[in-house]
Amino acid sequence: MNRIFTFLLLQSVCLGALLAQPNRRTQDESTLPGKRSELNVRNATYPRLLPGNRIEFKIKAPDAQKVQIDLGRKYDLVRNTNGEWSCITDSLTQGFHYYFLIIDGVSVADPASESFYGCSMMASGVEIPYPDGDTRFHIADVPHGDIRIKRYFSKTANSWRRMFVYCPPGYDTSTQSYPVLYLQHGGGEDERGWSNQGRTDIIMDNLIAKGKAEPMIIVMTDGNTNDFENELLKECIPFIEKNFRVKANRNNRALAGLSMGGIQTLNAGIPNLDYFAYLGVFSSGWWANPTPFGGGNDTEKYYKMLQNKKDDYNTKLKQFWISMGGKEDIAYNNCQIMMKRFDQIGIKYTYFETPGGHTWPVWRESLYQFAPLLFK
Amino acid sequence: MNRIFTFLLLQSVCLGALLAQPNRRTQDESTLPGKRSELNVRNATYPRLLPGNRIEFKIKAPDAQKVQIDLGRKYDLVRNTNGEWSCITDSLTQGFHYYFLIIDGVSVADPASESFYGCSMMASGVEIPYPDGDTRFHIADVPHGDIRIKRYFSKTANSWRRMFVYCPPGYDTSTQSYPVLYLQHGGGEDERGWSNQGRTDIIMDNLIAKGKAEPMIIVMTDGNTNDFENELLKECIPFIEKNFRVKANRNNRALAGLSMGGIQTLNAGIPNLDYFAYLGVFSSGWWANPTPFGGGNDTEKYYKMLQNKKDDYNTKLKQFWISMGGKEDIAYNNCQIMMKRFDQIGIKYTYFETPGGHTWPVWRESLYQFAPLLFK
Repeated sequence: MNRIFTFLLLQSVCLGALLAQPNRRTQDESTLPGKRSELNVRNATYPRLLPGNRIEFKIKAPDAQKVQIDLGRKYDLVRNTNGEWSCITDSLTQGFHYYFLIIDGVSVADPASESFYGCSMMASGVEIPYPDGDTRFHIADVPHGDIRIKRYFSKTANSWRRMFVYCPPGYDTSTQSYPVLYLQHGGGEDERGWSNQGRTDIIMDNLIAKGKAEPMIIVMTDGNTNDFENELLKECIPFIEKNFRVKANRNNRALAGLSMGGIQTLNAGIPNLDYFAYLGVFSSGWWANPTPFGGGNDTEKYYKMLQNKKDDYNTKLKQFWISMGGKEDIAYNNCQIMMKRFDQIGIKYTYFETPGGHTWPVWRESLYQFAPLLFK
Repeated sequence: MNRIFTFLLLQSVCLGALLAQPNRRTQDESTLPGKRSELNVRNATYPRLLPGNRIEFKIKAPDAQKVQIDLGRKYDLVRNTNGEWSCITDSLTQGFHYYFLIIDGVSVADPASESFYGCSMMASGVEIPYPDGDTRFHIADVPHGDIRIKRYFSKTANSWRRMFVYCPPGYDTSTQSYPVLYLQHGGGEDERGWSNQGRTDIIMDNLIAKGKAEPMIIVMTDGNTNDFENELLKECIPFIEKNFRVKANRNNRALAGLSMGGIQTLNAGIPNLDYFAYLGVFSSGWWANPTPFGGGNDTEKYYKMLQNKKDDYNTKLKQFWISMGGKEDIAYNNCQIMMKRFDQIGIKYTYFETPGGHTWPVWRESLYQFAPLLFK
């Protein structure tokens, strides 16, 4: 029945697009190798997940001269006699990966796969399943919280903005107040990143169901602003504390972020010890040196704050938690230099390393490790 | 500051993609004609809105042989000496329009523009502003509700599914119970359509602020199922009535949908007069004749129901509301035939027509007209 509905009631733009679309279902699913990527839109046969965590791409492009897939590494697709192009990738690490199609040199999004705002544009995604038995990042038959899309007018930014707010299971039926984690995305991403790419609600529902994490509210706001510290302190936190049942004190506030969000966490968290008792810095670290675009110059002022009130920081920060996606993470060196400065000053922190580089699988793992440490 | 964050902390896949991307900002914004399309991602200069509601597209594609934009009508782009391709469209109607890039015959999504699940794939979108003074579909300084993303396990579909739920301003602080509108997307769309393409929350916030519509909950679920009637009656409605403060009776339940969702509204609404006092059918209508794929054969049973209990329907349906996007709407003829049958039987309904065809501007307008009629 769906098929007729789809066929007859589409807008005219859709009819042409469906015919010209690269990844439409053309063959019986049962005759194809592996299985559909779980991020495919519902009628797309490709990309496909093959054994060994490899992805097969197949694109119908009879008039193209060159077709590539960009997964960080670029793969050249090979053309067959039907005008279809295909490739099979190397083994990919578990979890979420951005990718792009490149058609004759133009990098575009694949309409057959879900889109995600990342890399400062709408990127496509594939998801490599976690090993059998690792159900931490999969939806399970446990009580579920929800994600609430809230609009607010920011006087700091002078514009309407959005935040995505995770409310834990039971929020609507209880009368209790909850602690809050403010959790920031990375550069080129936005307030959608932690829920769409990061699966925040699924991770938290699973942790809370097992009693591993306290029920908490998680606020994921848009970090694309020139004044993140004021956006957070003067706009987001007052909005949340007015509109949600939260414990409005430092012992019940945490701040964390990945990559750019990790620098924002350091820059907004270190000067505001009265606001936050927990800081999480994922795949990040202060600039070790000035960059061609600025940044790095002002880092010394933060080290001075730490130096001047060393005992305060060591006493009042219940967690100063730093994670890294192995040596292959592009933030690794900066982070090492930063931690050496912390050691010299005598600032206590916890360091967690997991392989995977500067990628979402590492950040999901970071949230999974960090959340249980909060609000105990 | 954003620029350094973005530059240095991107994942490796992003760096290559940014360089190969067709719509990056290459020129000073102030030297360019018109303004950025409001659905562009934050760094994209093109597409641009020109006077007269025309859109200019510019794509960097030095190695492509042919570049087109598909907006229903296809536009051939013209290549300049820099390897950029451009075109200016005809005047477009106000509101949201899907589009695709076609690079050497391959229809793809534009990474420079927000993506929307429509046409059974991830499509790009442009938004043509409404005329000055028509603020019905724009965010305003009024109390705002929110959209809640709820996951539920459906025994009917035997899978995890999602619904998007609009809660009106004040829901969290009041103790009152609310009426509910169940509102379905069209073919090739999903539970995101009404909030992303349809701007449901903005439309409702504005209507409620003006006192034109009753505060209500709006449930937007995934209509892609072979058994919509049971999905709605046995899964969605019980889930909503368990998890939200709602008035759980027929006088406080409405069902509406666009296109495929309009047929689902008819098929689930007409046999269940005990459930719904209000029905809305936007750009839709029962199949007038059997189709090559089935459908149409079973319509007579519904007409018989109407015939047999004509007075019941005319008394109990407080609104049976039918809208159409003018004669240019692809559902127009079917709908006319259906309404003629209603006339013959003596079934009362209200018909509303607005120009624009089978498109989201028509469906936003339909919601704007329909919502004020409910729950009075």
